[in-house]
Amino acid sequence: MRNILGREIPKYIEGYGRTKLFKGAFESLGEVQKTSVNIKSAVPGKSKILKSIKEAVDACNIKDGMTISFHHHLRNGDYVLNMVLDEIAKWGIKDIKVAASSIFPVHSPLVEHIENGVVTGIYANYMSGPVAEAVSKGLLKYPAIMHTHGGRARAIEAGDLLIDVAFIAAPACDTYGNVNGVAGKTACGSLGYAIPDAMYGKKVVAITDHLVAYPICPIEISQEYIDYIVNVDSIGDAKGIVSGTTKITKDPVGLKIAKMTSKVIEVSGLLQDGFSFQTGAGGTSLAVASYVKELMKKKNIQGSFAAGGITGYIVEMFKEGLFKCLFDVQCFDLKAIESYTNNKEHQGMSASMYGNPHNKGAVVNNLDVMILGATEIDTGFNVNVTTGSNGIIMGGSGGHSDTAAGAKLVIVVTQLIKGRLPIVVDRVTTVTTPGETIDVLVTERGIAVNPKRQDLIERLKKTNLSIMTIEELKQLAEEMTGIPKKIENDHKLVAVVEYRDGTVIDVVRRIKD
Amino acid sequence: MRNILGREIPKYIEGYGRTKLFKGAFESLGEVQKTSVNIKSAVPGKSKILKSIKEAVDACNIKDGMTISFHHHLRNGDYVLNMVLDEIAKWGIKDIKVAASSIFPVHSPLVEHIENGVVTGIYANYMSGPVAEAVSKGLLKYPAIMHTHGGRARAIEAGDLLIDVAFIAAPACDTYGNVNGVAGKTACGSLGYAIPDAMYGKKVVAITDHLVAYPICPIEISQEYIDYIVNVDSIGDAKGIVSGTTKITKDPVGLKIAKMTSKVIEVSGLLQDGFSFQTGAGGTSLAVASYVKELMKKKNIQGSFAAGGITGYIVEMFKEGLFKCLFDVQCFDLKAIESYTNNKEHQGMSASMYGNPHNKGAVVNNLDVMILGATEIDTGFNVNVTTGSNGIIMGGSGGHSDTAAGAKLVIVVTQLIKGRLPIVVDRVTTVTTPGETIDVLVTERGIAVNPKRQDLIERLKKTNLSIMTIEELKQLAEEMTGIPKKIENDHKLVAVVEYRDGTVIDVVRRIKD
Repeated sequence: MRNILGREIPKYIEGYGRTKLFKGAFESLGEVQKTSVNIKSAVPGKSKILKSIKEAVDACNIKDGMTISFHHHLRNGDYVLNMVLDEIAKWGIKDIKVAASSIFPVHSPLVEHIENGVVTGIYANYMSGPVAEAVSKGLLKYPAIMHTHGGRARAIEAGDLLIDVAFIAAPACDTYGNVNGVAGKTACGSLGYAIPDAMYGKKVVAITDHLVAYPICPIEISQEYIDYIVNVDSIGDAKGIVSGTTKITKDPVGLKIAKMTSKVIEVSGLLQDGFSFQTGAGGTSLAVASYVKELMKKKNIQGSFAAGGITGYIVEMFKEGLFKCLFDVQCFDLKAIESYTNNKEHQGMSASMYGNPHNKGAVVNNLDVMILGATEIDTGFNVNVTTGSNGIIMGGSGGHSDTAAGAKLVIVVTQLIKGRLPIVVDRVTTVTTPGETIDVLVTERGIAVNPKRQDLIERLKKTNLSIMTIEELKQLAEEMTGIPKKIENDHKLVAVVEYRDGTVIDVVRRIKD
Repeated sequence: MRNILGREIPKYIEGYGRTKLFKGAFESLGEVQKTSVNIKSAVPGKSKILKSIKEAVDACNIKDGMTISFHHHLRNGDYVLNMVLDEIAKWGIKDIKVAASSIFPVHSPLVEHIENGVVTGIYANYMSGPVAEAVSKGLLKYPAIMHTHGGRARAIEAGDLLIDVAFIAAPACDTYGNVNGVAGKTACGSLGYAIPDAMYGKKVVAITDHLVAYPICPIEISQEYIDYIVNVDSIGDAKGIVSGTTKITKDPVGLKIAKMTSKVIEVSGLLQDGFSFQTGAGGTSLAVASYVKELMKKKNIQGSFAAGGITGYIVEMFKEGLFKCLFDVQCFDLKAIESYTNNKEHQGMSASMYGNPHNKGAVVNNLDVMILGATEIDTGFNVNVTTGSNGIIMGGSGGHSDTAAGAKLVIVVTQLIKGRLPIVVDRVTTVTTPGETIDVLVTERGIAVNPKRQDLIERLKKTNLSIMTIEELKQLAEEMTGIPKKIENDHKLVAVVEYRDGTVIDVVRRIKD
């Protein structure tokens, strides 16, 4: 079967089930059902504290075939996923499905668990490093299932992703299971991605290295949702959790792209009081923020909010009064954590509130401008941030597709050529985000606007910006690089790329050696 | 059928269904299921704002037989319930079930809707005034269903109380439905009781008189849960919402009871660092708090938390550093609202987090000492706070049964005689809270301890407090008042009293004229 983007999708995928074809970014909205959850209610007076992860595996009765979940706020400093899986492996348990919101290089021990059959399935919104490579090579028994951040929340709430046991990496936890991310030696700020896991996990275990007397304050995840607490020496390496500061690019090409992008935003008509904005933590994205900041100050614009993974740079804009508040699902650096801890206008949000298409309205729906990256973008404006030019998984949507679907103006910023390969192609290797949700591509050589945005094309034509078709950009790139050789896949399916609504937008197949 | 307390409960009750008999306060714990919810997901860009309540009734497609819900943070100043029901009546809709967390005298127009068949069922945790009288007289087609605060949250989460449309009285609301109770002219503080309604209502409408630009801060109820917003002139009368200040009793009998109670607490062994405490807003309860405050200061005790409906008096203790934090489901006065607004250690909690027995651990489970009132208490320590001595409904559990089940030391404080009637009786008219969850009764004439608390009896015997059996207290009262004449019921059942776990602990029958 082919979906609306012409991607060949099997009707049925082993380890996944029957597929639902992607039909368009907004075709699945309407009546939806949030699933029921079976839990065990607490007996007053009974302690939730267990002595070890071993005891938790036992208390939760983890068995072959179960799905266990993790969140990625500790990023490349996370110890929790490895500790839990090592314990599960010791028990001789097999066929575990790991639902980790993201997987990083630090999770390389997972490769061995994959090879040994301890882990046979993976759900992730993003993965990079050895696990992603192992998945790409087809080592995992079943294809990995790649969600978006909002789509993962949707899948959990809909019961598509049933979590038997959720493990919450808790930077601070009180003796009855109230959790926050603002205290302790591994403070990471907002715990937004963990909230659906806590609310819908059949069993939920808080793993902490900072157990405090009841009650903790503030509470990000309530005692209502926590079955057990395990106090360990360390849940993570603070150095891997956050970068000290996120920095604006110094590369002149990146700065040029950023400057052009800010001009597009200025011309769009959206830059007025109430302006809302999201950008990633990359150097070019931050440079866009810096130009937008200048514009906002010059024009005396009071924005409404910035959202996302929050960086120190966005915090600075907030502190200068350019945004009334911040919505934070995950803090990207120490400045963001500090601000989240101390400013009540720096508000946490769950992954569902952030980007779930199947609730009554996510934060992404209120974004004016979203700045996104791309590994590849095709002439249909479809973006790939899942696989690299070598066909290996090196990322995933994260919030890419969610924000693209929600924001009024979605701008992809990228150099036209990276690593001697053109970024604009006829057909992306993997579709992560559908072109219908992308408005503009800004490269250092020119700007392409999605033809569906004639209004924007009209506005931009009146400027001195270099506006061209995306086909022209592609040709420009190919003139410099030549037409790249297509990578060749074999038939083994290694990942299913779910759009945020649970339909299959693409699949990833193993690369031929 | 009789339940474990010997109360005659019909097997099946029209408008209620099959009854589950109360079997003991902790007999229903174990595996439970939270229900699924059907909602309609939002289309990005679509406004949630409607022009009027009329439009909301239409948009929600309210039809005969539906259940609509309200919360009671605006108490006797609430306009929302009346406005919505007046509109529903105008549409000619009949057979509506009103699930209001509490009903006050201000809701008297509901009586006409009951008489006209617009409203045929009521769910409430507490009711007083004309509606309670109308229910007691049997005017409502089906028996009213009386919950506890935690039990209502449980019923909603379990799907026992299915809400078709929840109306949220929103002191402040932004244009995408984020709600808080700390801004606007009808600011009432915590919106804890409304949270289950918002999370589990099929449709949810925020009715506000303070609509602000997106996004509001802080957020108590998230945009994820709100379908529609209606901006009206006024959602309530601020004078009815809160009392200016809650005050300690000046009555010497009340003060005596309070003093004795503080002595019981002191002797109990619970008054040490980490002490937690809850009391109501009544004058005697506040006097207990004042004596406890003195004790805590004298003994240099740092408490952990106070919980409940929060009063200015508890806020003062908190500000003096006697409690590390406050858990607040509802603010009782202006000082509490002010504190809730400005102190992050003054934390909101949902009704489920407060008292739901079927989650993974409610706040009541962590209470050391709970001070409760009683209209009647019988020799089995069963307490009635539902019906008056005339058999008319004049209250209900609210948090009574929840806190009694959770707290380590539960003390009922009351004068031995009120309105020339003994408070201690052989058999309470209506059981609200089972005796097994009550530890001590303190009256001005003496203290009775539940025989199951031999440990406490031993401790108290060593003091000069007047300890007697509850039978002795009853006799003491009857010597002064004579044995009161039993009120007589006919067979019409006017209310079902559900224990917090959803079993039927008692029923209320109509009084014979």
